[in-house]
Order: sequence, then structure tokens, then C-alpha cells
Amino acid sequence: MDDGTIDRALLFDFYGELLTDRQKQYIDLHWNEDWSLAEIAEKYGLTRQGVWDILRRAEATMRGLEEKTGLVRRYLERRTEIEGIRRQLTELLPDNEASRDILARLEGLN
Amino acid sequence: MDDGTIDRALLFDFYGELLTDRQKQYIDLHWNEDWSLAEIAEKYGLTRQGVWDILRRAEATMRGLEEKTGLVRRYLERRTEIEGIRRQLTELLPDNEASRDILARLEGLN
Repeated sequence: MDDGTIDRALLFDFYGELLTDRQKQYIDLHWNEDWSLAEIAEKYGLTRQGVWDILRRAEATMRGLEEKTGLVRRYLERRTEIEGIRRQLTELLPDNEASRDILARLEGLN
Repeated sequence: MDDGTIDRALLFDFYGELLTDRQKQYIDLHWNEDWSLAEIAEKYGLTRQGVWDILRRAEATMRGLEEKTGLVRRYLERRTEIEGIRRQLTELLPDNEASRDILARLEGLN
């Protein structure tokens, strides 16, 4: 899988804690809270370009980490495999509470 | 889980690619290939203390990454959960090939 296709939310979940506090905060505001660059710039007394540079560098850091470790890719492959197992199990198991419980446990694997 | 208890092989599997080439090489020789510090020192023309410093710093880097991201801890928790699901399934599923196949797929999740 090309890194460019990996969801930003996943990158932030896996590697966010490796960013600087400032990078983490701006990324959180822009990606998760939907603040505009201009709003972040105004709040923290930077230019819009300054905020953009910080965000771009933070994203590059996270994509670089992913390129080296492949941990998000492994996660996505695992999710696909878990979904395959779940489908196969749905056909094999009787429709009762114990089965529903185990399917939920499987679904909950991250 | 205390980071100190996390297996070095797992740390290296998750974070080894984030080390420098030299750190990676010495760690691989010492942890995986069981070379002594003296052997590495002789081969690369360093002192034993120099090799020790490089190894210590590399391990500290990996433990620091784990402390921030918790990715190995999440992996170990997932393995425990997978084992629980596997045990529960063993009781629920009939003993046939389809069941054995699905238990093997589950076992193969990383």
C-alpha cells in the first residue's frame, strides 16, 4: 500500500505521540477539530504560512515513520484478515448468545 | 505493563527500522546473533565501551518510542485477547477441517 493512501487519523493515532507538543496541538486542531489554518494562526500569533509549514513537517514526520516501520499498514492488513475470519465464523457458528459474544470480541481487536 | 519487562526482540521488531544503520547492525549482532561486545568492538575497530554506549543508546531510543506510543504493549494485549478468543472458539466449534482452518487464521493474526 502506498503511504499516500493511509488515512491521516490512523497516522496520528499511531505516531502522534512522537510529534512535538506544538505539532500535536496544531494537527489535532486542524485534522480533528476542523480549525482552518487562519484560525490556528490567529490564535497562536503565527502567519498562515507558518502554521502550514508546521503541519506539513509533522505529516512528513509521521509518513516517514510509517514508511520505515509499516505499523499502520500491518494494522490495516490485520483489520482485513479479522473481517475475513468474522465472515467465515458467522457461517460456522450457531446463532446464539455465545456466538454473538465471540464475534464482538473479534470485532474489538485493534 | 512496565516497559522494562518488554522483550528486546519485540522492541527491535517494532522500532528497529527507526535506529541508525550502525545501531541496527550492532543490536542485531549482539541481541540476535549473540556476538559479544568484544567481538563487535574488534570487528568494527571500536572499544568495548564504545560498542556498549551505542547499544545502550539504541535500546533507550526504542524504550522511549514504546513509552510514547505503547504499540508493543497494544500488541501484547491483543495477543492475550486473541488467545482468549481462540480458547472460547475451541469449545464452540465442531472438530472439523473448517474449524481448524479458522483457528489457524486466528492464530496467525499478529
